[in-house]
Amino acid sequence: MINLKELSSELKKLIYESENIAVASHLNPDGDNLGSVTAMVGMLKKLGKNAVYVLDDTIPNSFKFLPNLSYAKSPDNINNVFDLFIALDSSDENRMGENIKKIFKASKKTVNIDHHFSNTKFADLNIVDDKSPATCEVLARIFESLDLKLNKEIATSLFTGLSTDTGSFKYSSVNSNTFLIASNLFKYDIDINEVTVNVYQSRSRQKTDLLIRAMNSIEYFDNDKIAVVFVTKDDMEKSKAEKADADGIVEFVRDIDTVELAVLLKEKDDCIRLSLRSKSYIDCTKVASKFNGGGHVRASGGTINHTDLNKAKEDVVKVAEEQL
Amino acid sequence: MINLKELSSELKKLIYESENIAVASHLNPDGDNLGSVTAMVGMLKKLGKNAVYVLDDTIPNSFKFLPNLSYAKSPDNINNVFDLFIALDSSDENRMGENIKKIFKASKKTVNIDHHFSNTKFADLNIVDDKSPATCEVLARIFESLDLKLNKEIATSLFTGLSTDTGSFKYSSVNSNTFLIASNLFKYDIDINEVTVNVYQSRSRQKTDLLIRAMNSIEYFDNDKIAVVFVTKDDMEKSKAEKADADGIVEFVRDIDTVELAVLLKEKDDCIRLSLRSKSYIDCTKVASKFNGGGHVRASGGTINHTDLNKAKEDVVKVAEEQL
Repeated sequence: MINLKELSSELKKLIYESENIAVASHLNPDGDNLGSVTAMVGMLKKLGKNAVYVLDDTIPNSFKFLPNLSYAKSPDNINNVFDLFIALDSSDENRMGENIKKIFKASKKTVNIDHHFSNTKFADLNIVDDKSPATCEVLARIFESLDLKLNKEIATSLFTGLSTDTGSFKYSSVNSNTFLIASNLFKYDIDINEVTVNVYQSRSRQKTDLLIRAMNSIEYFDNDKIAVVFVTKDDMEKSKAEKADADGIVEFVRDIDTVELAVLLKEKDDCIRLSLRSKSYIDCTKVASKFNGGGHVRASGGTINHTDLNKAKEDVVKVAEEQL
Repeated sequence: MINLKELSSELKKLIYESENIAVASHLNPDGDNLGSVTAMVGMLKKLGKNAVYVLDDTIPNSFKFLPNLSYAKSPDNINNVFDLFIALDSSDENRMGENIKKIFKASKKTVNIDHHFSNTKFADLNIVDDKSPATCEVLARIFESLDLKLNKEIATSLFTGLSTDTGSFKYSSVNSNTFLIASNLFKYDIDINEVTVNVYQSRSRQKTDLLIRAMNSIEYFDNDKIAVVFVTKDDMEKSKAEKADADGIVEFVRDIDTVELAVLLKEKDDCIRLSLRSKSYIDCTKVASKFNGGGHVRASGGTINHTDLNKAKEDVVKVAEEQL
């Protein structure tokens, strides 16, 4: 257990001593990343600080409703040295990207707030709680321990991160405290319909079309315990999909009742990308490790160095069957 | 606001005065219905009562993990008169079905615990809170106000109902109190993975196949604000689907980012069933009312008295466009 109260008061001291403060997170923005960054910017503004959100990426449409995004600035437009740099939801400096890392390194003091087990404690002050399901939960607890009053915008940001990183309160990382934090955030009049419509009811036409195309290729093995789908280059073209539009397909396959292991094989120019999701007992890392990959027990990925989808399917199924 | 404390103590009195107690709910079991009934049976057993769950239906596979289902008994096997009958999550007597209604009518005392706005207050004691997102929330608050200690089984049942009737904490019915109740339930060591895998990761192959077939028919209108899908008799046969397997298709269409109104047209032998879902501003009841139907602002249904799917599509889109 980390001593959150002590670490929080160190953070408070750093914030109060600083005037120009930058916040940033990892590349490829997601709900917890954007939620924690916009909540922190909102709080710094509330405390009268000159806060900047350093962003070297595009915001996905589903998160454009988040407050305080107007404080985002590209690293290209930054030439001052910050008194304090707060990295959020980033397990190491490199995940922020080269351009932001440089600004981080040049800052007078640095803070790292995160919930990833793999966090490298890369800052002057590190507040890392790998027992928390979301960085937004860590941040909510920090604000609480400092008796900092939130507002509707900050609460909305924190709730969005908490909700997305727990799959809307479905993952095994949730516990009594997660719900208690959500309950406290709701005292600030969060518009749940705004969050739900933007985050969970905003699958694009392209993404929908790609999912349907991929699902037309589904094949089942071993009493339907293993299921494989392809995403071909032709599927991507015909549905006018972007890279991120393949996200969610492998989980859609996992959620079929008989399926223990879902396999997605995505055709690239010179290789096949492999995504694996399991439900209860197959260790995905054991399958992924045979295909130059790794990850988590329930979610892993890998790469196959050829482009023969049928051969890849046979090889992955053979390895997966050893784990059944 | 109902006086929950007073009503709860009246309920307590009725329970303590009774020996043989029946509980039941509406036909076509769902999460809140099964959650509230199994929680109540579990609590009655804990209080040393002779409790029976009167069930005239089959339990969907995704809810067979719920505890206390072994106390379910078909009305055909019941010939005694109960001291007390507790109806849960049923807005009127008829929704329990003819066979169960007879047993309800014959009981010495009756209770009705529910959260539906349309509840007819059909029992001796009625505890109806239409501000609650789930009957399981009403029940959790009753148990709390009576200082009744739960156990893991009862908490799991209550959480399942709370989660399913709020779309896993996504609907606008949730509030600070909903999350606080979930937080308290989690103090009883709920296995969230068990709930999630069974309830949210258990789409059948048939249901999956039906969804994909239906989605192949999708058509968009009015800058993609309206989307229509068909479920034909042929789709049902080819995917070997059951009636309930069409559930979820219209929500899947609503969740496309541009779509404000999703329309599902389901071909029957002598008519077409219409399902409507809207996201933010279209009042579904205004469209449904033109097709012999009604429902809620965001979810309605109706019936079209012919079987020409294309004509039905054109007619519904025309009416829907008036609401854009």
